[in-house]
Amino acid sequence: MADEIHYELYYWPGIPGRGEYVRLALEDAGAPYTDVAREPNGMKRMQAMLRGEGARPRPFAPPFLVAGDVVIAQTAAILAWLGPKLGLAGAGAAEHAATHQHQLTIADLVAEAHDVHHPIASSLYYDDQKPEAARNAKHFRDERIPKFLGYFEHVLEDQAGVHLVGAKTTYADLSLAHTLAGLRFALPNAIARLDAKIPRVRALAQEAFARPTLAPYLASPRRLPFNQQGIFRHYPELDPP
Amino acid sequence: MADEIHYELYYWPGIPGRGEYVRLALEDAGAPYTDVAREPNGMKRMQAMLRGEGARPRPFAPPFLVAGDVVIAQTAAILAWLGPKLGLAGAGAAEHAATHQHQLTIADLVAEAHDVHHPIASSLYYDDQKPEAARNAKHFRDERIPKFLGYFEHVLEDQAGVHLVGAKTTYADLSLAHTLAGLRFALPNAIARLDAKIPRVRALAQEAFARPTLAPYLASPRRLPFNQQGIFRHYPELDPP
Repeated sequence: MADEIHYELYYWPGIPGRGEYVRLALEDAGAPYTDVAREPNGMKRMQAMLRGEGARPRPFAPPFLVAGDVVIAQTAAILAWLGPKLGLAGAGAAEHAATHQHQLTIADLVAEAHDVHHPIASSLYYDDQKPEAARNAKHFRDERIPKFLGYFEHVLEDQAGVHLVGAKTTYADLSLAHTLAGLRFALPNAIARLDAKIPRVRALAQEAFARPTLAPYLASPRRLPFNQQGIFRHYPELDPP
Repeated sequence: MADEIHYELYYWPGIPGRGEYVRLALEDAGAPYTDVAREPNGMKRMQAMLRGEGARPRPFAPPFLVAGDVVIAQTAAILAWLGPKLGLAGAGAAEHAATHQHQLTIADLVAEAHDVHHPIASSLYYDDQKPEAARNAKHFRDERIPKFLGYFEHVLEDQAGVHLVGAKTTYADLSLAHTLAGLRFALPNAIARLDAKIPRVRALAQEAFARPTLAPYLASPRRLPFNQQGIFRHYPELDPP
């Protein structure tokens, strides 16, 4: 389903981060793209774009995508643009909108997953906000994760299947699968306690990551592992047994 | 530019909140809509939808919009749907995408403006997280607001005008104007210190709120005032002189 454009994805090279949501869609669709900041001199090119020395509108932050003469920042906006072109946004305007809506709800969950370890400021180290992170994490584990994943479990009940929208895989499915993996990396005990309540979300994730179009990427070195610089971080003290 | 559909907007009735971003676009375009939860029995209807007793996909949270047989949640997704129909998203796919991208960056700023007074958990009172809020607020005032508003100032420099996208007003302009008003309500001292650095953002806001299509709404009782239950809250201790 990939079209003729050779895409350029710009994202920080050392973490999966928000760039990974775009990467999953591009990889699943077999779309040709360059992961610019992981190429020689790529970071310089990315930073020049962030300084406003490139295309318009200038991006606020990575990830951003260059598609021919269009540049788009914001993960969900990139996916809203790419999804229909890659065949990963369902059929028709209403399904495109539903896919996008789910992506934005996933984005809210992802933002909260980051703020667990940085509740005071992104510019501070985790070590400078540990007591606050511990308080935040308890609410995230006990209230927020169950609310978000319980919501998606309900959506899949409504759908009577393993896809959030329509009858086929969308980028929202890929994003939810990746988010569950990230949460399990960060908070394995909390997610293990929740597993019995989210069988449909787990089935979606299993199906998405087993796709013949995606599994080779996931086993490749292009797939960056979760780590302690990213959105999803494992601090044992935030995830008691 | 309004089309034939009579829209239904669902949002908490007591605060401007995220619903206001949708309201501004509907009002500016003169689109016919019902603000459901502010009508008799409207809260019951909204809560039934949130329990999954209505259209699909069930919404995660307000605001959500019913447009004929389509229901869309997530503020930015609603505006991405409405914007082109209301003539408030620029011309063509690239401008639609740019408008949407800016809306998502505004949404990130709005989320941070909320987390200033709720850095630990939305489910707790402000009084239960005051020391953490004070720490968060310093970073928000000194780093984050200047970064976000400075970015939009650069975009307007690039544009050489008072519109974030193209040559006409888009919903992103309305959203930025409202966000500046919200920040000024919440943190008047911090914004006053920044005013000299954001002349273009201020000019955009002034132009947007003076629109003959919008000013009557802003002066009407339909426009809810900012208050201490919303996203933008004024706690003097978070905004030192």
